Amino acid sequence: MNLNLGLFGFGCIGQGLWDVLHRTNGLRSSIARICVKDRKKSRPLSQDYFTYDKDDILNDPEINVVVELIDDADAAFDIVSKAMRQGKAVVTANKKMVATRFRELLDLQTSTGMPLLYEASTGGSIPIIRNLEEYYDNDLLSGVEGIVNGTTNYIFTQLMENPERGYAHALAEAQAKGFAESNPSLDVDGWDATYKTLIIAAHSMGSVLDPRQIVRRGISHITPFDIAAARSLGCTVKLLSRVLLHGNGFSASVLPALIPNSDSLANINNEMNAIRLHGAFSDDQLLVGKGAGAHPTASAVLSDISALRYSYRYEYKKLQQADAPVFNIGNPVRVFVRGPKELLNELPFSDVHVDHRTSSGSYRIGDLSLLDLSRSFAFNSETCFIATMVE
Amino acid sequence: MNLNLGLFGFGCIGQGLWDVLHRTNGLRSSIARICVKDRKKSRPLSQDYFTYDKDDILNDPEINVVVELIDDADAAFDIVSKAMRQGKAVVTANKKMVATRFRELLDLQTSTGMPLLYEASTGGSIPIIRNLEEYYDNDLLSGVEGIVNGTTNYIFTQLMENPERGYAHALAEAQAKGFAESNPSLDVDGWDATYKTLIIAAHSMGSVLDPRQIVRRGISHITPFDIAAARSLGCTVKLLSRVLLHGNGFSASVLPALIPNSDSLANINNEMNAIRLHGAFSDDQLLVGKGAGAHPTASAVLSDISALRYSYRYEYKKLQQADAPVFNIGNPVRVFVRGPKELLNELPFSDVHVDHRTSSGSYRIGDLSLLDLSRSFAFNSETCFIATMVE
Repeated sequence: MNLNLGLFGFGCIGQGLWDVLHRTNGLRSSIARICVKDRKKSRPLSQDYFTYDKDDILNDPEINVVVELIDDADAAFDIVSKAMRQGKAVVTANKKMVATRFRELLDLQTSTGMPLLYEASTGGSIPIIRNLEEYYDNDLLSGVEGIVNGTTNYIFTQLMENPERGYAHALAEAQAKGFAESNPSLDVDGWDATYKTLIIAAHSMGSVLDPRQIVRRGISHITPFDIAAARSLGCTVKLLSRVLLHGNGFSASVLPALIPNSDSLANINNEMNAIRLHGAFSDDQLLVGKGAGAHPTASAVLSDISALRYSYRYEYKKLQQADAPVFNIGNPVRVFVRGPKELLNELPFSDVHVDHRTSSGSYRIGDLSLLDLSRSFAFNSETCFIATMVE
Repeated sequence: MNLNLGLFGFGCIGQGLWDVLHRTNGLRSSIARICVKDRKKSRPLSQDYFTYDKDDILNDPEINVVVELIDDADAAFDIVSKAMRQGKAVVTANKKMVATRFRELLDLQTSTGMPLLYEASTGGSIPIIRNLEEYYDNDLLSGVEGIVNGTTNYIFTQLMENPERGYAHALAEAQAKGFAESNPSLDVDGWDATYKTLIIAAHSMGSVLDPRQIVRRGISHITPFDIAAARSLGCTVKLLSRVLLHGNGFSASVLPALIPNSDSLANINNEMNAIRLHGAFSDDQLLVGKGAGAHPTASAVLSDISALRYSYRYEYKKLQQADAPVFNIGNPVRVFVRGPKELLNELPFSDVHVDHRTSSGSYRIGDLSLLDLSRSFAFNSETCFIATMVE
């Protein structure tokens, strides 16, 4: 099958894809047309490639694959759904669109018969979706957890090295290096990781969540005191995405985590991503790769394009299993909470393991459910730093 | 497609597969018959499952998949080729058979039209073959390297912790723990890793080597002096499988390696395996998983069985590319050689970086080609320890 590509968006990833397509052998595909928004921006390619009218791609019968690489999730959904209805296969890197419109996109795949692939949406260059679909479909997965946001990982790496400089400085440095957007909320408040976690949960647990169901807290409340506490506990701080099976239920969360230094996830630094799968038979597996960057992301897009040559599509086998686990955040987990004593006292711990009180700060380490945690005053207060404890 | 399995061999992996098949959902497959050799051995299943005549499986038209899990590579090839000619798909874990009969097995796949899958042959539970086939087929892979033998990794882990106990003690401990065979040559002389390296080279570089072309040296020459030297250089010792592109050529080797402690491969311990892929676009990726054990290996076998449901087969895309790189071990690499001065003097280093001479031992670190290295007296002498330097 000859692939004739229509590209939406020509930013960092789009240009990366252009490079990658022109340097790889053996893939019969070419970019026929590129739809962009800004007429004034200068482009590194001949103007002939570009159009400002999306219908020039959507209505072109010669274009059989649409590659969607724009930022806006709603505009992306509009493009993707129209392309599929026009009988075009779609490859996208838009995690927010995939996560927030998951069911609609499933229905579109069924009704149009067209494949929709989105490896680049999750874990950067790590082939996590394809592996969950293909390789782990019959292994009883008891959990998938990892570092799926490169920006926050870069910030934490800086903070662990120079805690005294503080969060604001580390964030500014990440922005200066191009690892964080000027509006960093998507990353530092955990939304980016939440969308990816939702996608992982769908492919590993067979359940489509609403993003608001995922227990989420950002990283911006961290102080040098918290980092010193983590160090004294032999831990490193990371933003951890977790999808964990407990009996017939599973939980999903995006929270800062205290990870023992001996754990391989503690040693994943800077913009790297890592995903650990706990399988009943395969045992623990760890996949590590670049979580961001034009070429790593483009390489994931390319692998989807390549898979379309042999009509690959996700089968969503786990979504079709009748006995899929149900979402349940009632099980106790171990957490670290630093904050004012009155907020610590209010937390309904079933067990308190550490009650640390000094004049410079107080924290508790204890067990409570993610449900109780997310409903607590502490969780909703700027004055607390909260992290799960990885054992 | 309903899969009706005929199993050859019921050792550790065969029994692991039985467990795994009976604890997993959603896979319509069942073991119809198991062919074993030893009539006297007691079996954990009803005698009805077992046969001692391979034709009971090979001639059974109801059986559409043969799973080959025996030790003997020649007997395995006989079974596999007959099964394919009888129109049965085959799954095997036999790395020696796959590596030594690669071309014949390719021809058999073409002439019979039957798929042959062997994920379990390489990297234990790590899905390396499928990922090389599917995910990296259009990424320009500049190298694949890793720890692919769990036994030697267990031995090196013990040796780094307690160098004074010596190699013989570490080997005996590995044997006692069931990580090494009573005849350990297959592991400690690097043959097991060599077969796996050949399979990786075929799927990553598109070239089928003879196992004897792969530059191979075992681990048994290591002494406490070598371990102390590695430590003083900030390194850990591992047996490293390497398939590396240099220009239009590629090299393949299985050699002890001095790996800087800061490198993630240095921290892969005990029976774990790890494979690092260097891609032009995806950048470095690391896959880590259990390299041995009944269930991890069975889980790889299971994933192959599962893939047969949708008629998956390896496409060997790289083998079909006209411009595949050619085998070439003429490029300089950095090596560590400890041994008698007359053998060190004889080595045709293009550059010597360290020339360490003390009364307790002498070593040199320098650059020379794998070709010159493999032809040297040092390489063929029991009195030398040789390792590549990982940068």
